[in-house]
Amino acid sequence: MNLAELLALTDSYQHELPGLPARLEAPRGLALSGWIDHTLLKPEATAAQIEKLCAEAREHQFATVCVNPAYVALCAKLLAASGVGVCSVAGFPLGATFPALKAEETRQAIDAGATEVDTVINFGALRTGDFSLAFDDVAAVVEAARGRAQVKVILEMCYLDQRQKIAGCLLCKEAGADFVKTSTGFGPGGATVEDVTLMRRIVGPQLGVKAAGGIRTYANALAMIAAGANRLGASAGISILQEAVSGA
Amino acid sequence: MNLAELLALTDSYQHELPGLPARLEAPRGLALSGWIDHTLLKPEATAAQIEKLCAEAREHQFATVCVNPAYVALCAKLLAASGVGVCSVAGFPLGATFPALKAEETRQAIDAGATEVDTVINFGALRTGDFSLAFDDVAAVVEAARGRAQVKVILEMCYLDQRQKIAGCLLCKEAGADFVKTSTGFGPGGATVEDVTLMRRIVGPQLGVKAAGGIRTYANALAMIAAGANRLGASAGISILQEAVSGA
Repeated sequence: MNLAELLALTDSYQHELPGLPARLEAPRGLALSGWIDHTLLKPEATAAQIEKLCAEAREHQFATVCVNPAYVALCAKLLAASGVGVCSVAGFPLGATFPALKAEETRQAIDAGATEVDTVINFGALRTGDFSLAFDDVAAVVEAARGRAQVKVILEMCYLDQRQKIAGCLLCKEAGADFVKTSTGFGPGGATVEDVTLMRRIVGPQLGVKAAGGIRTYANALAMIAAGANRLGASAGISILQEAVSGA
Repeated sequence: MNLAELLALTDSYQHELPGLPARLEAPRGLALSGWIDHTLLKPEATAAQIEKLCAEAREHQFATVCVNPAYVALCAKLLAASGVGVCSVAGFPLGATFPALKAEETRQAIDAGATEVDTVINFGALRTGDFSLAFDDVAAVVEAARGRAQVKVILEMCYLDQRQKIAGCLLCKEAGADFVKTSTGFGPGGATVEDVTLMRRIVGPQLGVKAAGGIRTYANALAMIAAGANRLGASAGISILQEAVSGA
């Protein structure tokens, strides 16, 4: 990473943001399921709850189930040949461990059957202004997943100021991440329309933007997509689909 | 681990608990600092806040500073020859990653300068009844730390029923952990006198018991020690010491 360039671009974007790329068309009705990561990251979840999550994902054809690493192998087995992916997490939810550790967690998750990995950037480092460390963090995970799984990078936007948000998105793009993602769902704030719009403006049309944290209704899901998201993380995916079908 | 024996002992303890070992004498006044892990695990913490934590720990001679892995090297440098240890965490706070990953995080933390590691047991596995996986989890971390650092195992008691609490303590003891610890501080419940008493009765006098989560006053600290704790995790260590000195 060329840090000076990144800082210059960050400053420039603080003055004037790039325009919003062409608006995405929201999938209609049940087709929305393919944009949702059906999520159960609560640490107290039992195997029986994870089995139920997988059965629901298979029935509704969600994009993935999003689970903690310890349950990836179980999900990969239950979802074999279902068309539903398995999304694991790395350095989750604090993002405050070693870059090499997040990379190793990514490798082990992929070996266990993960098709996507949502990692948490070292947002403490972003807040400290140590953008190099934050970059190394993302780059190590991207390298570990290369050619084997998609990488989404959670910035935990609720903790960042505008400059840190912009720099965070830019360095994810520079490091080769596939998606930026708003929130862990464990912090004090979740996805907002403002943050999703900002992320989409910064990363442009090529990268994905995943909105997660507090998305509980169909209206909320559509608002996130209208703002620029092309993936949603939610534990309420089934009730969102029910609303989509009933036209609520 | 002999699982059948562990289950038999768990059942027997559910009917009748072992007695409480001899009550520990609480350190008086400022000497209490040597029983406290001065803790800052908030993921949004900046390097400046960690530097302040270390300065406070050096001045008050806390047992350790307890920080996330990414800050271990900084703390080890700041606390060299201070008499204050550096406590890292592994699999924190969800405890839902791979045993081999927690072991690797332990190794990397020790290499970076950690003298103690607080790991989180797979309490989802305990709730599922998969005591073998929970045991493997602890055993892998103990093996990674052997001869180099003390291992405390967080059970996150707020999520466990009585049988799971007893089995969890027994398998930590069997796996060779140095301490059992009540809580991460990130769950819905913290240390309680009841849980500390239970842990001390189960692990006996040889293992340590660390109470953590919501300990904010001197009175509360003394209550935990009276119940059987010999280490406290707190972010409020300084105000606790001030109360200890002022006789509050």
